[in-house]
Amino acid sequence: MAEYKAPLREMNFLLHEVFAAEELWAHLPGLAGAVDRETADAILEEMAKLAANTLDPINRSGDEEGCQWNDGVVTTPAGFKEAYATFCEGGWGALLGNPEYGGMGMPKMLGAQVEEMINSAGISFALYPVLTNGACLAIDAHGSEALKQQYLPKMYEGTWSGAMDLTEPHAGTDLGIIRTKAEPQDDGSYRITGSKIFITGGDQDLSENVIHLVLAKLPDAPKGPKGISLFLVPKFLVNEDGSLGERNHVNCGSIEHKMGIKASATCAMNFDGAKGWLVGEVNKGLAAMFTMMNYERLGVGIQGLGASERSYQNALEYARDRVQSRSPAGAQQPEKTADPIIVHPDVRRMLLTQKALIGGGRALSTYVAKWLDISKFGEGEEKKNAEAMVALLTPVAKAFFTDKGLDCTVIGQQVFGGHGYIREWGQEQLVRDVRITQIYEGTNGIQALDLVGRKTVANGGALFELFAADVQAFIDAEVDREEMAEFVQPLAAELQRLREATEKMVAAAQEDPHAPGAASVEYLHLFGYVAYAFMWAKVAAVALPKVEQDSFYKGQVKTARFYFARLLPQAQALAASVNAGSATLMDIEDELF
Amino acid sequence: MAEYKAPLREMNFLLHEVFAAEELWAHLPGLAGAVDRETADAILEEMAKLAANTLDPINRSGDEEGCQWNDGVVTTPAGFKEAYATFCEGGWGALLGNPEYGGMGMPKMLGAQVEEMINSAGISFALYPVLTNGACLAIDAHGSEALKQQYLPKMYEGTWSGAMDLTEPHAGTDLGIIRTKAEPQDDGSYRITGSKIFITGGDQDLSENVIHLVLAKLPDAPKGPKGISLFLVPKFLVNEDGSLGERNHVNCGSIEHKMGIKASATCAMNFDGAKGWLVGEVNKGLAAMFTMMNYERLGVGIQGLGASERSYQNALEYARDRVQSRSPAGAQQPEKTADPIIVHPDVRRMLLTQKALIGGGRALSTYVAKWLDISKFGEGEEKKNAEAMVALLTPVAKAFFTDKGLDCTVIGQQVFGGHGYIREWGQEQLVRDVRITQIYEGTNGIQALDLVGRKTVANGGALFELFAADVQAFIDAEVDREEMAEFVQPLAAELQRLREATEKMVAAAQEDPHAPGAASVEYLHLFGYVAYAFMWAKVAAVALPKVEQDSFYKGQVKTARFYFARLLPQAQALAASVNAGSATLMDIEDELF
Repeated sequence: MAEYKAPLREMNFLLHEVFAAEELWAHLPGLAGAVDRETADAILEEMAKLAANTLDPINRSGDEEGCQWNDGVVTTPAGFKEAYATFCEGGWGALLGNPEYGGMGMPKMLGAQVEEMINSAGISFALYPVLTNGACLAIDAHGSEALKQQYLPKMYEGTWSGAMDLTEPHAGTDLGIIRTKAEPQDDGSYRITGSKIFITGGDQDLSENVIHLVLAKLPDAPKGPKGISLFLVPKFLVNEDGSLGERNHVNCGSIEHKMGIKASATCAMNFDGAKGWLVGEVNKGLAAMFTMMNYERLGVGIQGLGASERSYQNALEYARDRVQSRSPAGAQQPEKTADPIIVHPDVRRMLLTQKALIGGGRALSTYVAKWLDISKFGEGEEKKNAEAMVALLTPVAKAFFTDKGLDCTVIGQQVFGGHGYIREWGQEQLVRDVRITQIYEGTNGIQALDLVGRKTVANGGALFELFAADVQAFIDAEVDREEMAEFVQPLAAELQRLREATEKMVAAAQEDPHAPGAASVEYLHLFGYVAYAFMWAKVAAVALPKVEQDSFYKGQVKTARFYFARLLPQAQALAASVNAGSATLMDIEDELF
Repeated sequence: MAEYKAPLREMNFLLHEVFAAEELWAHLPGLAGAVDRETADAILEEMAKLAANTLDPINRSGDEEGCQWNDGVVTTPAGFKEAYATFCEGGWGALLGNPEYGGMGMPKMLGAQVEEMINSAGISFALYPVLTNGACLAIDAHGSEALKQQYLPKMYEGTWSGAMDLTEPHAGTDLGIIRTKAEPQDDGSYRITGSKIFITGGDQDLSENVIHLVLAKLPDAPKGPKGISLFLVPKFLVNEDGSLGERNHVNCGSIEHKMGIKASATCAMNFDGAKGWLVGEVNKGLAAMFTMMNYERLGVGIQGLGASERSYQNALEYARDRVQSRSPAGAQQPEKTADPIIVHPDVRRMLLTQKALIGGGRALSTYVAKWLDISKFGEGEEKKNAEAMVALLTPVAKAFFTDKGLDCTVIGQQVFGGHGYIREWGQEQLVRDVRITQIYEGTNGIQALDLVGRKTVANGGALFELFAADVQAFIDAEVDREEMAEFVQPLAAELQRLREATEKMVAAAQEDPHAPGAASVEYLHLFGYVAYAFMWAKVAAVALPKVEQDSFYKGQVKTARFYFARLLPQAQALAASVNAGSATLMDIEDELF
């Protein structure tokens, strides 16, 4: 297995050459002065070291050992405690946190790169701080001042961790039918009773306390999603001085045995009249949960990128080392018994597919993070526009990065042949680990429904037109550069194809309630391919004038060409499927399946 | 997890209504009288029971327990020994065997359906008899009369099993560079010395003896693939009376820890001067190995189908049982808290994708098996033509069925949401198990190179034209049926698209040695999609007149429509990638990856 080497060059290229991050950071009112390039560089370099030296080495052993559950107590694999302590000492839990409560207030554009590295080093470990981040976001956005002061500093430190308790055995996608109850008490707190499943980091031995954010229903709550409230329920109650008090009535009943992310504890949690506090308003728990979902969903997408990058690095090293058969053009290294397999066109196709999908994804992740930063730190029209872009692009990023994450890790395994199927090389673990990212935090099918429903049909395609305008502005700016024609012309054609599919779907939805759902997954993929084309065209626009200066830029331009020639054609097929409508799906009787 | 129910109706429909098997069986000279419909029906029904009652129940527990290796002894999981005994008692190991040595001589068209059921019930178990079959084929085709008499009856019985020993640590795809040595002895035997890896069933506790077929090099052998010979090396030497003699010098050094098929022992085998006998001619071992590869490669493809069918049955049951959210058209089952998820268009898309890919694959598998039977039991021109069809279609079947097998099992897992990621439901095991089928018996990349190189470019597309002529004959026969226009017209268009891509690739190969490899995998997939369109059109042609007679036929027609509307568009994108040529793959310097 190759040693993990963080792709700092690619990250810095995107941040500073493609997306002019420093300029944006200086300009955003809410961010002024908090970060400059020097700080950003130092942060990325530090995480690159931590990921390679501390997190990556426990990823394989963590998979082999897995988490253990004994009598309600969860134990993480060897080395996880020490790695978590090092992670927390480095202040990484505070990176994006609110400075008023001990956070560093860094932009997501930077955070996105940091997250990619953590996830390349291992999704299982990454999930512990990720869930804490998510809980902090929800508390910061919706909690009372008292809750924020009491919980956020310790959670940013990592001394206490966070968990999100949504799913119940009978209620996954459909949270409206949850049964967990919250009974108001005289002291302003609530008693929470119910069973939750699939709770990532619901219990573990890394942190001193676990702060659960639990969806539950008040006794008089309306039926359905409008009767759900959000509660903070700590594993240990917290005394007024901030020290830990008695154990709360929340227990881990078991952990799941899963396909992958085996070092991440997926807990069944029982709340037996546990003490909790309301976060946000009564019956607005789902909304509170969803305000932080955009951050988290991009984060899950980035898990897909991280695993893909790790798989690519391994596959590339293997393809350079493994000798097997000769090039179709004759022996390239006649002194060896065979040529390294990187000479074979199909092996190059596999590696370039990974490289192009990862590069496109990293660029799009940085682009979405830019809009997240503007929506958080910006003002007025600019902020409003950014919020709309975030709303539109988040489901694309979550689902497309992770669907392509499975493709990339499967390809990276295939490069190894039989050795890719054996556990010792680590390539198969990446496939198993990344597979969950297509499922949790809203399955990719649900992301696609969000994209076509709330984000597109509901506003007649207005959000889509915002995105299209940004692509069009790029096309207009580049259309006179002759050397850019190979990218700009197909990009314009694919944008038009996407626009036509969008308009057709919006129109069809007026008469056919099944139209959006029938188009959804393929529409999201079509959107993803066009968005990656936009990204690779932007990359090429910056890299083309510099190809003589540094071979890095040449590599970027050639990868962009590969993307346009070999991967973008997918858009044709997807548009045809989208345009086929719902008839062939709905016309077949249930019993004929 | 749903109980496995063999798709006997679909199998009988394909055998007798679509492919008129009984007529063919009566007509083939080498098969006359060996099988009729009644026998075939009985065989299928018996295997349906065995698969459901004996094999399926040990599949999940086999995965959890795995094989164990201790001091050179391999133990299979609980229940495997008993199931293997039952399997052998039923005579299943003899199904396709040569009747001269105790085989039943059944046609592959029937065998293909039987194999699908065994593999649906569990690939791990299936591999033990599969490898024995493969070894029997090689011995029957190339062994001396003495070897056949000595080994085949016991192997058909299953008392002795078989293993194929090809791969070495440094030599997988590139068998020309193997190092295992064979030294001739005075008694006509050979001493075999070397190390082999990835030997499926190389050792186990199911059979009394393991008969290895080993690739090795004689001391004076020419370099490369033309210096490889094939040897039979039993674990226990066999006395003249057929009883077992002393232990041979062949040992299992370890077993692999793998992503899946954990109940199948994947062995590292050490040959330390083991006694062996030549099979076939000196230095023609690879050719001997490959004469039985067509049978085996179709069999690996069928593993992909079997796992897909199992996953589909589970997903379908779950989609009918699991209630979650309401139909976009309003509540369908208002008395429940939510509707069963089969009402959602995207869930239907997932299920129909599985159904259409499995049905297309099962039809193509039966079609390829038909050509295998004609090539084995036929005569003259008919036989020659069938051999050509088999040569062309085998790599398509192996790679396309298994690539789509991964897609199908991933989809079947996705239908379950988070529950699909948990081990207890079995859906994730199917993903892990089926993944190996894309890798072993020649990776799917190698299958694609075989298709574009040896099978297409090398003969200027002559084999392709044979297949195209069969498709065209169907089109010509159906072109005047108005109700068939929705299938015949797009089929004709896609055949033309495939022809153009074929011609372009054949022409490009004259000047560019990288052209075939650059096109290979996407070309194979393009071929696969067009072949499935052919199959679904054939199915529709038979089913259309009967839709009022039985809803089964209606289901077939509607699935065909779904395939043409939603899946076949992939062909457009694949053709565009194929036609893009090798430039973007070869133009990028190795160090810029």
